Amino acid sequence: MTTFDDPATLTPAEARALFRSGRAHPTTGWATGFTQTNLIAVPRDWAYDVLLFCQRNPQACPVLDVSDPGDPTTTLASGADLRSDLPRYRVWENGRMTGEATDVTGRWRTDMVAFSLGCSFTFETALIAAGIPMRHIDQGRNVAMYVTDRQCRPAGRLHGPLVVSMRQIPANRVADAATISGSMPSVHGAPVHIGDPAALGITDLGRPDFGEPVEPEPGDVPVFWACGVTPQAALMASAPPFAITHAPGFMFVSDKRDSDYRVG
Amino acid sequence: MTTFDDPATLTPAEARALFRSGRAHPTTGWATGFTQTNLIAVPRDWAYDVLLFCQRNPQACPVLDVSDPGDPTTTLASGADLRSDLPRYRVWENGRMTGEATDVTGRWRTDMVAFSLGCSFTFETALIAAGIPMRHIDQGRNVAMYVTDRQCRPAGRLHGPLVVSMRQIPANRVADAATISGSMPSVHGAPVHIGDPAALGITDLGRPDFGEPVEPEPGDVPVFWACGVTPQAALMASAPPFAITHAPGFMFVSDKRDSDYRVG
Repeated sequence: MTTFDDPATLTPAEARALFRSGRAHPTTGWATGFTQTNLIAVPRDWAYDVLLFCQRNPQACPVLDVSDPGDPTTTLASGADLRSDLPRYRVWENGRMTGEATDVTGRWRTDMVAFSLGCSFTFETALIAAGIPMRHIDQGRNVAMYVTDRQCRPAGRLHGPLVVSMRQIPANRVADAATISGSMPSVHGAPVHIGDPAALGITDLGRPDFGEPVEPEPGDVPVFWACGVTPQAALMASAPPFAITHAPGFMFVSDKRDSDYRVG
Repeated sequence: MTTFDDPATLTPAEARALFRSGRAHPTTGWATGFTQTNLIAVPRDWAYDVLLFCQRNPQACPVLDVSDPGDPTTTLASGADLRSDLPRYRVWENGRMTGEATDVTGRWRTDMVAFSLGCSFTFETALIAAGIPMRHIDQGRNVAMYVTDRQCRPAGRLHGPLVVSMRQIPANRVADAATISGSMPSVHGAPVHIGDPAALGITDLGRPDFGEPVEPEPGDVPVFWACGVTPQAALMASAPPFAITHAPGFMFVSDKRDSDYRVG
């Protein structure tokens, strides 16, 4: 088996096996070329609100798979178990995060519906292939994520702000980054904002709401993409009785190839 | 107001006003450049099944808008009323089409949820702009649609076969037609099949299941796209107690521009 200190070359099944055994690590840069997904699982009673929220906010919440109630498997990865194969989970009760765990099998209700959402790590592969540096990977950090002052379009009982991920991109590569990610609409697509963080209500890039701060290089421009952590902000704002999500940056590694989500 | 015999140059609002006044006509070629949509409306109790069916069969059922229960408006067109502004509707009870009407205001239950789905007429604009002939428009006919022997991925209580629309395309333009439509994934995207109808279980192109037969020109190849009539086939197969849809080819004309749905 590939060693843990070379996570880029792991197969998705190897990465999932490591996480199933209890290992926890942010997954940016892991299993290069394979699609990672955000998880949000809610009781069946809330599933329509979540699915509609995703439909109405597709850039933040691109749905790649939805499970049947109680079913912890996914069409995105053969043999995977969504209750144990992510590196870290968050458990939510009445809008508050009440715990983190590396396995949530014991908390998985029989009516849980699991939503797998596209993740910006997917287009990172394409950006890196085009020679665009990913500062957070180079710095060995989780990506930086921020709650913005933009509200999502509400759906039923669900509402909340847009969350974005930020990457520092050399100014002369920003257009390329926008074009390449724009060709992958099911994994957040083009940036929602380029430049001034204050215009999104972000006061300090050095203090992200999720993930870790990332240092810019001289000449870098902050580029912001809609982020799959947005549903977690909606859980906080809308307070459904129960939910399980991934921990930000600790994603599900699927068997799908990043290139499967490229249009044209 | 533009006259009825020049439907291509109507504005969307003018087209909707004509239909609201009771005029019924297939909308292919109408209000050129503006997006048309399929309608399926069901009681709230069935809304999750429909939305999930669409998520699981996105090529046939690309969701562009979902109304709140009982609300007949849509974000796709200012001032529009989905109960009266389509040229022709079908009413479904227990899986059987029990009537057609040009206005369904009296049948719109207070808990109806309306789904507006992308339509292949949207990419026709781009195909025509590229010099690819649309035989059905030239022949003054509705597009031809066929029920295939391919099953959609089921969702809850909803299941049924894939329905396709067919266009006869000159052999040397088929690749262009695939590429151009492929760049518009939210309006059915690339063809699901090119050539032999028998491979889809279609025995006679001259006898479509919906719409009208279209004559090929010498050298044409039949090209098949996933079709927004697919949910109607699911209604027939799954028999929910009540639903309202558009009549095939008699679409809702929205205010959105076709170019809004082009990726990259």
